Amino acid sequence: MNPTSTSCETFRAIDVIRKKRDAGELSREEIECLVSAYTRGDIPDYQVSAWLMAVVLRGMSRAETAALTDAMLRSGEVLDLSSLAARKVDKHSTGGVGDKTSLVLAPLAAAAGLVVPMISGRGLGHTGGTLDKLESIPGFNVNLSVGEFRRVLATCGCAMIGQTAEIAPADRKLYALRDVTGTVESPYLICASIMSKKLAEGIDALVLDVKTGSGAFMKNENDAAFLAELMVETGERMGKKVVALITDMDQPLGCMIGNALEVVEVVEILRGKGPEDLRQLCIELAGWMLHLGGVASTVEEGKKHSSELINSGKALEKFRQMVERQGGDVGVIDEPKKLPQSRHTLTVSSEKSGYIASLQCEQIGTACVILGGGRERKEDSVDPAVGIVLHKKVGDRVAAGETLATIHHNAETRAERARQLIEASCTIADAALSAKRPLIHRVIGKSGEKN
Amino acid sequence: MNPTSTSCETFRAIDVIRKKRDAGELSREEIECLVSAYTRGDIPDYQVSAWLMAVVLRGMSRAETAALTDAMLRSGEVLDLSSLAARKVDKHSTGGVGDKTSLVLAPLAAAAGLVVPMISGRGLGHTGGTLDKLESIPGFNVNLSVGEFRRVLATCGCAMIGQTAEIAPADRKLYALRDVTGTVESPYLICASIMSKKLAEGIDALVLDVKTGSGAFMKNENDAAFLAELMVETGERMGKKVVALITDMDQPLGCMIGNALEVVEVVEILRGKGPEDLRQLCIELAGWMLHLGGVASTVEEGKKHSSELINSGKALEKFRQMVERQGGDVGVIDEPKKLPQSRHTLTVSSEKSGYIASLQCEQIGTACVILGGGRERKEDSVDPAVGIVLHKKVGDRVAAGETLATIHHNAETRAERARQLIEASCTIADAALSAKRPLIHRVIGKSGEKN
Repeated sequence: MNPTSTSCETFRAIDVIRKKRDAGELSREEIECLVSAYTRGDIPDYQVSAWLMAVVLRGMSRAETAALTDAMLRSGEVLDLSSLAARKVDKHSTGGVGDKTSLVLAPLAAAAGLVVPMISGRGLGHTGGTLDKLESIPGFNVNLSVGEFRRVLATCGCAMIGQTAEIAPADRKLYALRDVTGTVESPYLICASIMSKKLAEGIDALVLDVKTGSGAFMKNENDAAFLAELMVETGERMGKKVVALITDMDQPLGCMIGNALEVVEVVEILRGKGPEDLRQLCIELAGWMLHLGGVASTVEEGKKHSSELINSGKALEKFRQMVERQGGDVGVIDEPKKLPQSRHTLTVSSEKSGYIASLQCEQIGTACVILGGGRERKEDSVDPAVGIVLHKKVGDRVAAGETLATIHHNAETRAERARQLIEASCTIADAALSAKRPLIHRVIGKSGEKN
Repeated sequence: MNPTSTSCETFRAIDVIRKKRDAGELSREEIECLVSAYTRGDIPDYQVSAWLMAVVLRGMSRAETAALTDAMLRSGEVLDLSSLAARKVDKHSTGGVGDKTSLVLAPLAAAAGLVVPMISGRGLGHTGGTLDKLESIPGFNVNLSVGEFRRVLATCGCAMIGQTAEIAPADRKLYALRDVTGTVESPYLICASIMSKKLAEGIDALVLDVKTGSGAFMKNENDAAFLAELMVETGERMGKKVVALITDMDQPLGCMIGNALEVVEVVEILRGKGPEDLRQLCIELAGWMLHLGGVASTVEEGKKHSSELINSGKALEKFRQMVERQGGDVGVIDEPKKLPQSRHTLTVSSEKSGYIASLQCEQIGTACVILGGGRERKEDSVDPAVGIVLHKKVGDRVAAGETLATIHHNAETRAERARQLIEASCTIADAALSAKRPLIHRVIGKSGEKN
């Protein structure tokens, strides 16, 4: 596809607005002209927001979604990592509470010989963000130039940075407009936003972790599956190997929530320890990354190899290397106390005995935001030290008076509000649960058919 | 209703955009806050255009439509004509080709003792505009101040002007945005736009002429009826007497199309002459105006009285008075040659004998625009002299070689293009029509129940 092949001379924004309003299907050319003219500033916001609302209410075909993704991708620089011989693989999560798998997976897949050029985001609302977690490591620089990013990738195999001005500028402009015009909630627009940024990384394969449950953006599993199918098909139309796992976010992932606390748990996982659900999900996602990246002939083989890379210490060694290359203090790996520490802790105790029936996940994420560990608005700053450590998870037995969670905080009144939210989020039943929600709900994508 | 009673302190545009996107019903307060904040410039165009598109695709309840009309009406000045003892009545048409009834009706109803404070628009696309027709009379001033408008009304009983900056500024701002964002085509928004401007005239009653057929904006009669019902209910909710006539616009109204030519035909009607369809529609609409205005106990009585006012010359006298008060050359009434005259004429002849089966009305309107008699864009200027005189109308017998129409023009190439369009617009059948479309399709509105 050649961007210069499209003639936009006769293009008029009003025509594509009307066409989408009337439930028509836009051509690839129309979408390309719209995105490129908007990125250049040749179409005003008020026309694009009317079009976005028409897309939200009329939807898009698979071909339109792929064309939009492609146009947004090509609005900026697409990384050319062809000088690196290894396959380039990435993972993207739709976001959740306690979801720190990216920090485990990048070094783990790199230790397996893949290149992981991971461009991540910040936390917003009740969910955390990979960049905020990384920045809790003193000195860690997520703002590498494209040249520095490439150099770290070449020597280390993985690097983790924030979005640069060069990558998918159309997405940045469109996202800012969607945010203030009620047009965020469209699977087609969400798909194009995610996939345009990820595919601009110059990757060969992508594993998508689409969350569902009380802490996910898609509370409903069918909505999550619809988005997953859309992203997989869009990626495949663009010649990439893509698979999506619908995974559980009905309770926080792992036990630690909060930026520095999550880095502690990442190191535990990389040492072969840490909570079972987090370890299991990391191994599952890594298994798929290794399989799609061609270094494991099956997902099972990929999972087995991933476990070995953890047990041998090679994955942790790769993490250490990445932290060092990106300017971070590697001392935090052996001495977690070197990470930012909150001044106070507050204990949340169980009022009665029984079994944890549910942990309302969005409320726990919100409790962390209240402590200062997340942001309600983009411009808010984040306190890396605060957070929540869960001592009990869904299905666990608990005695009256036993500690449910420890709040790490720097402000009494905030801690009290967080405590109330955490207490309210926890339902305790008399009897043990008869069935637990699975961690992996479904796998979507033809790339996984062999397994 | 007190505009200051609404507190918009907690109002956020994003909330009403999302609510309408999700098919919710907005409260009167939410609509008032949105319209007032937008008129003040406190909400950006890009939020309002997203909301407009959501309205186009989700629709509005009757209560929302009335609240929007009311908020737009109260965005500016509402004329207070209470110092004039007579009832204030107006007529509004949704626009068509050859529709010059306003120029007949304003003096006719004023001659019956009513006050007609008519604020009109300009032609756009294939339809003509009242202001353009009036301005073909040398000296006629449609840009009266509100004070001058009031003085002409007090002494003459009717006055015809263009929209002023004080009347419904929200509509002007919203219409300009709708025009460029594909959000014109919504009956709810069309209703609020028309009714807010008309009710700002401080009238007691309104007769709506909603056109249907090949020359109307609503080609389909059911669409026309839907809009008519919406406008009638909105007007009634605001305490006005409103009735809507669905009238035929499948062929041009009368025989003359073009600004100065239409003034000639208006004078003919006011002299008791002129084409039958135009006279019949004027009498019908006038009958309703007189009835709703309380000077005729039935529509039939109103029609009878209207005919008498024409036959006695009183309606023409009132027209003469209005032209004079608004600075126009009254000489044109007795000597139509004083109106702008085109330099050339071109004859369109019939190729065969038979009966006129149809005259595609939008094409004939477009032919007049091509001659220079209308405008494709708002900023275009208009040639008052050009136009078309139809010698045959639907149902008429025609011989091969007989003249179908005379084109009045000032440019040969334009005339030739117009001739082709007029020829193409005319279908000639061998046999006479078995049935003719009615001139009045339906009457909508409780105000007319007695009849």
